[in-house]
Amino acid sequence: MRYAVLGTGIVGRTIAGRLASLGHDVVVGTRDPATTLARTEPDGMGNPPFARWHADHGQVGLETFAAAAAFGETVVNTTAGGQSLDALQAAGAANLSGKVLIDVANPLDFSTGMPPTLDPVNTDSLGERIQRAFPEAKVVKTLNTMNCFVMVEPARVAGEHTVFVSGDDAGAKEAVTALLGSFGWPRASVIDLGDISTARGAEMLLPIWLRLYGRFGHGDFNFHVQGPRSGD
Amino acid sequence: MRYAVLGTGIVGRTIAGRLASLGHDVVVGTRDPATTLARTEPDGMGNPPFARWHADHGQVGLETFAAAAAFGETVVNTTAGGQSLDALQAAGAANLSGKVLIDVANPLDFSTGMPPTLDPVNTDSLGERIQRAFPEAKVVKTLNTMNCFVMVEPARVAGEHTVFVSGDDAGAKEAVTALLGSFGWPRASVIDLGDISTARGAEMLLPIWLRLYGRFGHGDFNFHVQGPRSGD
Repeated sequence: MRYAVLGTGIVGRTIAGRLASLGHDVVVGTRDPATTLARTEPDGMGNPPFARWHADHGQVGLETFAAAAAFGETVVNTTAGGQSLDALQAAGAANLSGKVLIDVANPLDFSTGMPPTLDPVNTDSLGERIQRAFPEAKVVKTLNTMNCFVMVEPARVAGEHTVFVSGDDAGAKEAVTALLGSFGWPRASVIDLGDISTARGAEMLLPIWLRLYGRFGHGDFNFHVQGPRSGD
Repeated sequence: MRYAVLGTGIVGRTIAGRLASLGHDVVVGTRDPATTLARTEPDGMGNPPFARWHADHGQVGLETFAAAAAFGETVVNTTAGGQSLDALQAAGAANLSGKVLIDVANPLDFSTGMPPTLDPVNTDSLGERIQRAFPEAKVVKTLNTMNCFVMVEPARVAGEHTVFVSGDDAGAKEAVTALLGSFGWPRASVIDLGDISTARGAEMLLPIWLRLYGRFGHGDFNFHVQGPRSGD
């Protein structure tokens, strides 16, 4: 399968690397590949420059958002939530049309300091905004409720834990569930919340996730939805 | 211990009944006890009228918000979130001063239809509003992230699962953790998120909780925060 991963940050790199290791053809999309490759300083999160990662992952391409999206049969949005709609406009509606568009971004707003808040929130979500902006894409919100290393290697976390999917297209959610399975997610760990409006609830997990991250000092945790005791 | 439980709905009844069964002296608070007892119809959620429940729980008192709060050494707010500040004003700041005030309410706003949204949300929370309005009370937000039957009988849900506490007063959180222990919550299941501003994250779990409730068709589930696999 050909995948486009939009975004060159740690989330994009982690997902792109995992997809490549599974044998997929992967192109990472960025606004300007030359600028991305020219950076020599760590990013704002302290991650090494993209070029260093790319040197170790030569099988992964780097193209403009539009060229990457044109290449991918499935597109993964890993850009910062506040920039996702711009990045997807640059990717181009025609390059997203008819495709599964996996949205793992969170609309974190750092403008009011730490911890960040969400924008949009409560009566809307980034997942819905993307679906409205690109009605021909099959948007599936998933994986946004955990650290990127857990996304692609769920066994980092003990026992059973949960990944949510939200989207309007049942076939797209089924395809994403299969992809999650290849990442190591048992089917029983995948909870289909419903249509894309349920992305609100998934995105609204971020504030408590961020507090837990601060408390634990690491991201190797996840939410598990525990059901009734057996026998009931 | 003397407890005041403010609110006569299913959450208040469930917590009041559990406290009484543990041997505590419990008074339920309502705006007008005569009106509450005179109701003969089920409430908006289909629960039987309070008087029927009260007939089976004669050891639990029913008083005005103010008389109940004056009686309680600890006060539990189980009123509907949109009415909690009014109810607590009726209870009276003097009757809350210096006491642990356990807030289990969620500020659900049904004015825009189903599913409800939250108000306040994101940059504020009901827990914080209550703490600001009653600075002499020791507000602890807890138990709001689950069905009331799970609150008082965590064994309804399989395996380990989590209850969060948020508050500015460490001693109050410790007292609440002990009370949760008497309800059946192991200490290891209690996660102290931090100060009362962390109630935002706990309240923002409601949208996904409501979607899961709709999907499962019952409330016998809960979130568990799974940590790293052992050995790491």
